[in-house]
Amino acid sequence: MTRVAYVNGRFVPFNEAGVHIEDRGYQFADGVYEVIAFANSRLIDLAGHMIRLERSLGELRIRRPLPPRSLELVMAEMIRRNRLSSGILYLQVTRGVARRDQAFPPQATPPALVMTVRTVHGPSDVMIAEGVSVVTVPDQRWKRVDIKSIALLPNVLAKQEARAKRAFEAWMIDGMGNVTEGSSTNAWIVTKAGELITRNATNAILNGITRLAILSLAGEAGLDLTERPFSQVEATDAAEAFLTSTTSWVLPVVKIDGNRIGDGRPGPVSRRLRAAYADAIRAQIERHARRA
Amino acid sequence: MTRVAYVNGRFVPFNEAGVHIEDRGYQFADGVYEVIAFANSRLIDLAGHMIRLERSLGELRIRRPLPPRSLELVMAEMIRRNRLSSGILYLQVTRGVARRDQAFPPQATPPALVMTVRTVHGPSDVMIAEGVSVVTVPDQRWKRVDIKSIALLPNVLAKQEARAKRAFEAWMIDGMGNVTEGSSTNAWIVTKAGELITRNATNAILNGITRLAILSLAGEAGLDLTERPFSQVEATDAAEAFLTSTTSWVLPVVKIDGNRIGDGRPGPVSRRLRAAYADAIRAQIERHARRA
Repeated sequence: MTRVAYVNGRFVPFNEAGVHIEDRGYQFADGVYEVIAFANSRLIDLAGHMIRLERSLGELRIRRPLPPRSLELVMAEMIRRNRLSSGILYLQVTRGVARRDQAFPPQATPPALVMTVRTVHGPSDVMIAEGVSVVTVPDQRWKRVDIKSIALLPNVLAKQEARAKRAFEAWMIDGMGNVTEGSSTNAWIVTKAGELITRNATNAILNGITRLAILSLAGEAGLDLTERPFSQVEATDAAEAFLTSTTSWVLPVVKIDGNRIGDGRPGPVSRRLRAAYADAIRAQIERHARRA
Repeated sequence: MTRVAYVNGRFVPFNEAGVHIEDRGYQFADGVYEVIAFANSRLIDLAGHMIRLERSLGELRIRRPLPPRSLELVMAEMIRRNRLSSGILYLQVTRGVARRDQAFPPQATPPALVMTVRTVHGPSDVMIAEGVSVVTVPDQRWKRVDIKSIALLPNVLAKQEARAKRAFEAWMIDGMGNVTEGSSTNAWIVTKAGELITRNATNAILNGITRLAILSLAGEAGLDLTERPFSQVEATDAAEAFLTSTTSWVLPVVKIDGNRIGDGRPGPVSRRLRAAYADAIRAQIERHARRA
């Protein structure tokens, strides 16, 4: 079966999916993206992703490439044409093609819209059961990482450092010694006193859709929850740590820079929240199936 | 005449010059670039640009797409095929095309190389004679702007802010209240005591090739020169200010955030350095013509 991509209004074979070299995404990282999981052909947490996409576009003053309803139709068609029932959909919008000049091009320049879908392999059963390691790196990113932009070079370097050290993720440390987040995941800890902490959503982190879902589930579960910066030292001293993302869900972190967290095994809060998130996704899919 | 671009080993019509949507330049800003002026078919300050390109690639551990000598042959061929004797050559190297994953792809992935050339309109005679305005904006960029990467989104936003305020450039102010540089130019001032100052080249600025040339010319001219951070206040109180870049050469700045600098006219140091740089370029071209 030929994989299909969507590029600026057309469904094209994936291998032939190209953009012009003067697309501002290629020359200036002048664009935004979303990664949305789907299961049973149902896009998970779609509303949250669409809201964030609108916000990212608004912050950068990039025009919507399509009205939201049309965008959702294209996404559904991408899933259908690729004959996948579960996987991830990648969507990128840039400020379009224009003669190279840093400032915005004329208003008439249409934004570019590109989509792919593919199968995804989430964390393995072993990773879920035993947890993963993270390393810390200085947070070198720009000051508006709340915008989900494609200016991801610092994230690339951080993730590569993790990979080189055989860790799953890099947690980034700001100038105050606090953890901001992972290169593609949000960071959480549970203190020995049982307080669940994740960094508050300012310009210093990307407000993950899974992060929001977990906040909500933690609230429902009556957990002692605080959104605030936490330090690298607090993280190392924590009873539990975990990370969240669209593809990882809730994944226990059992080592930070080689230091064992708690007893070195996934803790009860991580396990409980992972189970709650799995239930929430299942419920979303079932609601969708009943409506269809 | 058809404009020609170079894309991964092939000379192609500019309008058809495309890269795959999974080129890491498009999804991660995982690449670097150079902009090199040419006149009389001679690439100006080529050696400096090649050294900086090597450095940028090295810092990001992106492989060379071609040996330096081959790269120079392709550049010369681009100028020839586009039948331009003067203009600018744009060159971009990314980590290549790979399944989307933040960490570096396997070693075997070839880097991507793209080039365009075009005519360039430097500053107008009026701008040179009367000087230009700049506005200040917070420096929101990442911590490694010494690497000439394509992660230029913060520069785009800064330049657009300048454009919206009818200024030529945005000077970026760091957390200490010091000027780092412009969104695509280096920043210089001359104090009332006659000290010529430009920020020292650390990770906080891009070490401009024209900046280096001007430093050298200022040294030869026996000017009182210091490379150090200077504050926004010092800039506003300066006797003269100017900016440097590949396309602007030395361009006087006569207003910062609406405040007149000195007497509001280009000063003698700016004029002298611009003339010296013009002479140096002329000499480069003549040396080249004699050799050819």
